[in-house]
Amino acid sequence: MAKEPKKLDDLFHDTLKDIYFAEKKILTALPKMAKAAQSDALRSAFEKHHTETEGQVDRLEQIFEMIGKKAQGKTCDAIMGIISEGQEIIKEYKSSPALDPGLHAGAQAVEHYEISRYGTLKAWAEELGLPEAAKLLEATLQEEKKTDVALTKIAESTVNQAAE
Amino acid sequence: MAKEPKKLDDLFHDTLKDIYFAEKKILTALPKMAKAAQSDALRSAFEKHHTETEGQVDRLEQIFEMIGKKAQGKTCDAIMGIISEGQEIIKEYKSSPALDPGLHAGAQAVEHYEISRYGTLKAWAEELGLPEAAKLLEATLQEEKKTDVALTKIAESTVNQAAE
Repeated sequence: MAKEPKKLDDLFHDTLKDIYFAEKKILTALPKMAKAAQSDALRSAFEKHHTETEGQVDRLEQIFEMIGKKAQGKTCDAIMGIISEGQEIIKEYKSSPALDPGLHAGAQAVEHYEISRYGTLKAWAEELGLPEAAKLLEATLQEEKKTDVALTKIAESTVNQAAE
Repeated sequence: MAKEPKKLDDLFHDTLKDIYFAEKKILTALPKMAKAAQSDALRSAFEKHHTETEGQVDRLEQIFEMIGKKAQGKTCDAIMGIISEGQEIIKEYKSSPALDPGLHAGAQAVEHYEISRYGTLKAWAEELGLPEAAKLLEATLQEEKKTDVALTKIAESTVNQAAE
């Protein structure tokens, strides 16, 4: 029997697995980034985002349940790439005044990846008639945008120190 | 002799190489995405962005010249991951009504990666006393943001069709 072509609900489910995998990777990366950070402001931003990310994983699990699927990740090459670039920075810029700006740039790349994914998923959830899922995705999207703004503010101070 | 620790100007140069590599990859990916797109609106958005990307590569080459370095890329794992996810979508969603939303999501992930990189580079250029470079980076940043908004508008129509 020929397989049915995939539809928007499959794309929603596939992308949900992608970001679920990504969030779990971010949960393991953030403590390493916090440990490497030189400034207290950057370290506590990473720690705060770690707690938030746990809540975001929990929301994703609720959405898997809403669509009657098992919460399961699917290798997300994008986040693997972004995180491996961050790890390279930690190695190459160890003891450098530019370490914090480098860590900050990596974190902001992560945020932007998440903003694009959650924006897309929210639009699809609305289109698929899943208003409760859309509400949870919107809550996470707003958190990610706030984190991005907070990181930009911290960046202004860390980059000043690095250039001194 | 011990190597000098890397500084902010090294980070700026490393990140410039990263985005230069990324833009070149995007230049080769966009025609494939345009060919795969089902809707005329999405196809012409990709074609338009291809032309813009050529101009962005040109700006990066001007910046390499300003800092007295050879225009050279450095493997960017992040963009490799984002693009490989897009290629997977093209394969898995061939002939599916969800192909265009999938392509669109991939393109928006690319845009957000670029927005985060150009935002960071622009801030560093200002800090390093490179106002001409900052101006070029700002021009590209604004183009990327416009592309992101344009893609969101197109998404609204392609996702409607996919859900029908």
